[in-house]
Amino acid sequence: MSARGHANLRIDARRLLERIAKLAEIGAIDGGGVCRLALSDEDKAGRDRVIGWMRALGLEIAIDRIGNIVATRPGRGGGAPVMTGSHIDTVRTGGRYDGNLGVLAGLEVIATLDDAGIETERPIAVAAFTNEEGARFQPDMMGSLVYVGGLALEEARATRGIDGALVGAELDRIGYAGTAPCGAPNVHAFVELHVEQGPVLEEDGIALGAVEGVQGISWSEFTLTGVSNHAGTTPMRLRHDAGYVAGAIVAFARTLAREMGGDQVATVGSIEFGPNLVNVIANHARLTVDLRNTDEAALREAERRLHAFVAETAAAEGVEVAHRRLARFEPVAFDPAMIALVERTAQELGHGVRRMPSGAGHDAQMLARVCPTAMIFTPSVGGISHNVAEFTDDKDIEACANVLLHTLLALASGD
Amino acid sequence: MSARGHANLRIDARRLLERIAKLAEIGAIDGGGVCRLALSDEDKAGRDRVIGWMRALGLEIAIDRIGNIVATRPGRGGGAPVMTGSHIDTVRTGGRYDGNLGVLAGLEVIATLDDAGIETERPIAVAAFTNEEGARFQPDMMGSLVYVGGLALEEARATRGIDGALVGAELDRIGYAGTAPCGAPNVHAFVELHVEQGPVLEEDGIALGAVEGVQGISWSEFTLTGVSNHAGTTPMRLRHDAGYVAGAIVAFARTLAREMGGDQVATVGSIEFGPNLVNVIANHARLTVDLRNTDEAALREAERRLHAFVAETAAAEGVEVAHRRLARFEPVAFDPAMIALVERTAQELGHGVRRMPSGAGHDAQMLARVCPTAMIFTPSVGGISHNVAEFTDDKDIEACANVLLHTLLALASGD
Repeated sequence: MSARGHANLRIDARRLLERIAKLAEIGAIDGGGVCRLALSDEDKAGRDRVIGWMRALGLEIAIDRIGNIVATRPGRGGGAPVMTGSHIDTVRTGGRYDGNLGVLAGLEVIATLDDAGIETERPIAVAAFTNEEGARFQPDMMGSLVYVGGLALEEARATRGIDGALVGAELDRIGYAGTAPCGAPNVHAFVELHVEQGPVLEEDGIALGAVEGVQGISWSEFTLTGVSNHAGTTPMRLRHDAGYVAGAIVAFARTLAREMGGDQVATVGSIEFGPNLVNVIANHARLTVDLRNTDEAALREAERRLHAFVAETAAAEGVEVAHRRLARFEPVAFDPAMIALVERTAQELGHGVRRMPSGAGHDAQMLARVCPTAMIFTPSVGGISHNVAEFTDDKDIEACANVLLHTLLALASGD
Repeated sequence: MSARGHANLRIDARRLLERIAKLAEIGAIDGGGVCRLALSDEDKAGRDRVIGWMRALGLEIAIDRIGNIVATRPGRGGGAPVMTGSHIDTVRTGGRYDGNLGVLAGLEVIATLDDAGIETERPIAVAAFTNEEGARFQPDMMGSLVYVGGLALEEARATRGIDGALVGAELDRIGYAGTAPCGAPNVHAFVELHVEQGPVLEEDGIALGAVEGVQGISWSEFTLTGVSNHAGTTPMRLRHDAGYVAGAIVAFARTLAREMGGDQVATVGSIEFGPNLVNVIANHARLTVDLRNTDEAALREAERRLHAFVAETAAAEGVEVAHRRLARFEPVAFDPAMIALVERTAQELGHGVRRMPSGAGHDAQMLARVCPTAMIFTPSVGGISHNVAEFTDDKDIEACANVLLHTLLALASGD
């Protein structure tokens, strides 16, 4: 591939880190974090600054009707662009890397190509998608979902936020309801660089992750109804203890994850008992179970086993069960050739790399509906994200941006 | 024994049930229940009514300095009385049987002896002890504890209630700070008749319980501190999940009760997680464990196994544990000859009877410190107590009062 001719090409880490710091000035909060909720005044100011950098790079800028920004560097042969990017909106107490890194590393790749006078065969585009976080407007990944045609524009515009504001009105207010169409993009391939937001890479001492896909999510709420009774005078055999059944489910969730193995995770993060007194058998318990797996068949098997356990345990205890599905998303598998390309590129640059799933949702999973897609993960210190303490080492930033550079170069070579 | 001569003697169930209904008029609440919190105006009115009946029976009435009422029917030979009784204070939403039955059945026994013109060798006394419930003033069983010298009078009088009132001031206010001494009673034997407050007798279809003792109680609170993290991006092996450890303890409490067997009960009635969100691994959990057993060595073994499990499970998960002891009482074993007498008396009257522990505390456990003691249990429908729905069938009331009659006759025979 023609990228071979540029094997020694490297990004300018200082310039990238400066842009990360400059963008983090907008909506800065105590502790080094950032608050730029989607379509807020801070989001507008952040968009303005990023677009300024895009203009300075001479890119062709398109803003679509849901506010996604796509900046394109032309290619020798034209055609559908190779795209990278992520988002610049944040949660209320967010860090400076989540999303922002992916957009700014894309701009750094373009600046590096410009400096070296390299023309690619295909165009390269850098996207900043609207409202990835979902912290103000549900659902999350809204901009990329509309971009690929998964959600109607008018439905997205009619979404009311936690502060009562409408997406459409806020887009109009901040001047980011653009004119470019959305819903049927023409993209050759998509690669998103993102911080891991988990502890795996740091724990393993590996610099990069080649993301194989995004876990499917199954959220259940179980409400258990037993009989309240005296903890001293009621023999074990005569109990209908909703609290016991809830505790057994918590313990089973761990057993299930261990027995399923692989990428299966299971979490009970929320629980309540009633009347919640030390010496009264609970007649009420409510708990949530969060199951995730990269494989849909495995996730269904985990759900089946969970429900079987709950039904059996509750029946044996004489406790009634009500189930509510809180969320359900199928797993997304990225393109095998794209995953292999990311992996190979990292190795060629001398970095340790491991294949891994993403536990969180990302814009890339929406782009995967319309083109070959992959993601590059860089370590999050302590696995911390959605927190002002979010941090990735400068040397890891440099490494992952170089992997993005050479991955995009390979994809844009026209081979 | 001389009681043999009165084998066909029976109490007057109608009269006893009428007194139960009349006493339940005072402090009556919706649903057929009663609210006569200790040393309240309602408690005073209830005491006045009971003392009226004691006077009508010609009994010698002594009120001691903590307000315990002891009404005595003389015996031919004098000496220490055979005593029965219980309490007439209730919880805020109590029933009409808890405590009241024991006092009023004692008066019914005396009325029956009077009607039949029977003179016993020993005196027979009926006691109504102050503040058994502990619903207004802690600790519960206060009157009987002071009666047997287990708590200093002045300490009891200085107890402040949930409404800010002092026991001493309230005793003075309602006119029930008597002059009889307390702390060194002279009692030949004590038998308390009480509703079971549990479901065992009804479940087994047995009319009477010969109570072998009162369970020891061990209440623990565990506070678990782990690390909060993303439920999707944090692999199982890297978790420090306080919620998982809490759930495992809930499940273990049941395993422990099953493996210990016998009278061991174990209950987790109260739990909380923090931050208590569906998709965040809990960094905080707090739960209580209520362990009870009639055997002190077994209770200690249960405590030891619980603590070992908590320490081992928390260490394996990398979660820190803090333990707080909320309550600890040793079991009380009643007098074997007294238990056998209750059992034999019930059988002679043609009733099914089973030996059983008491899961709740009773005045009898205080009297057991100073004299041979036993208890008679009568079924609670549905095991319900401390509730306006508390109910015991009239035929069971009649049966247990007759067993009390013949048990007291045997004890008072002077054999």
